[in-house]
Amino acid sequence: MTWVRGPPSTFELPISEETQTPQGMLNKRPPGVTNLTTLLEGFARSIDLLYQYSMPLPLQVAFAAGSSGIWRIERITAVAGESLPPAERLAVIEGPEAQRPLEGSWILRGTTSNERYTNREELKALSVKQEMLLRPRATRAALIPIRKTEAWWDLAQDERRAIFEEQSRHIGIGMEYLPAVARRLHHSRELGEPFDFLTWFEYAPEHADAFEELVRRLRSTAEWRYVEREVDIRVSR
Amino acid sequence: MTWVRGPPSTFELPISEETQTPQGMLNKRPPGVTNLTTLLEGFARSIDLLYQYSMPLPLQVAFAAGSSGIWRIERITAVAGESLPPAERLAVIEGPEAQRPLEGSWILRGTTSNERYTNREELKALSVKQEMLLRPRATRAALIPIRKTEAWWDLAQDERRAIFEEQSRHIGIGMEYLPAVARRLHHSRELGEPFDFLTWFEYAPEHADAFEELVRRLRSTAEWRYVEREVDIRVSR
Repeated sequence: MTWVRGPPSTFELPISEETQTPQGMLNKRPPGVTNLTTLLEGFARSIDLLYQYSMPLPLQVAFAAGSSGIWRIERITAVAGESLPPAERLAVIEGPEAQRPLEGSWILRGTTSNERYTNREELKALSVKQEMLLRPRATRAALIPIRKTEAWWDLAQDERRAIFEEQSRHIGIGMEYLPAVARRLHHSRELGEPFDFLTWFEYAPEHADAFEELVRRLRSTAEWRYVEREVDIRVSR
Repeated sequence: MTWVRGPPSTFELPISEETQTPQGMLNKRPPGVTNLTTLLEGFARSIDLLYQYSMPLPLQVAFAAGSSGIWRIERITAVAGESLPPAERLAVIEGPEAQRPLEGSWILRGTTSNERYTNREELKALSVKQEMLLRPRATRAALIPIRKTEAWWDLAQDERRAIFEEQSRHIGIGMEYLPAVARRLHHSRELGEPFDFLTWFEYAPEHADAFEELVRRLRSTAEWRYVEREVDIRVSR
């Protein structure tokens, strides 16, 4: 069940929009690269994309704050409602292990799932820009657990979609910050957890300002009027 | 957490469409009923509706097949894919108890959740026709666990909605059999369960034919081409 994260590519891509698609990569290799190498790299890239976009089953994920984990917790800020206790490190546990009892200052659990609002056109646009997690240069991350109000969950599907995208441009705004900011959404509401979603973002230090802007813009949307609890946890490695 | 099922009304309504809405009920009481009684019954009915339609948190539910439970298992039929082992009785466990280890021939778990496809107009239409579970006369029930294909889950939200309702009329067909057939949908996919959904229906013996027709019509829709496993478990009490 670790295939969603996937192995790193056999080559490293700089985090820039131009080189994120297989086509872009094939067009922009420096001269002197043999055709065979290009072919192999293109193949490796295809495997990465396959790992990333083919999610046949929800992946179970636990975020465990405590004394271990590859991420060092820099700060924990309550944006709305109650905060979470301080801790030194954050571990991200994926697959069946995420369901086992874990020790920590706090543990939040969620699962990936199918898209709930995204239409086909948006999915197509996302699929060429989205990046995988754990890129070597993406040494900063944010875990932002969110709980929405009952009023949100009482809305019909068309009403939630209208607020989410037509009014708030949640997908559109997020897309502006791809591929710099890689992200993964985890659903927690049906697991009896204290939050409805665990949003996770990874980015390189040079994109920290862009990430702050992304978060600020989302928080000013109509959708955010339905957020009743939000904690912003910043980590680095 | 048993409030979703709710207490029985202080009065019993016959299972017929005419008398299912508070308006219908108030208009159709036999002569001789005092205004006060009418008022109290209307109030009791409102409380029922409140119990039924206000679901602030997903309710955890376990269906445990074995030697105990109020429901006697009449038959288990594999409609698509693998069946489930035979058992004598079925217990429906709600709330935190549903998460504890349970004994049984098989145990299926799910949670109620927010609507995923229903728009506001449809919700309004449903809300005046839907009935609560465990009505005294609804002594027959069906548990129909369903798993959909990867192709379904890979579709975008607009594509799934188009197949679900515009092509298959899932909501529309279901509505034709309300209030005779009461139902509750449980989501299982994010719990790592063998099925994506546990659909549960309750009806009176005189509506058994109508229920067969409902199930037959749904199985002939475009949506059902995406069903890869379906087991039909009929029970009575």
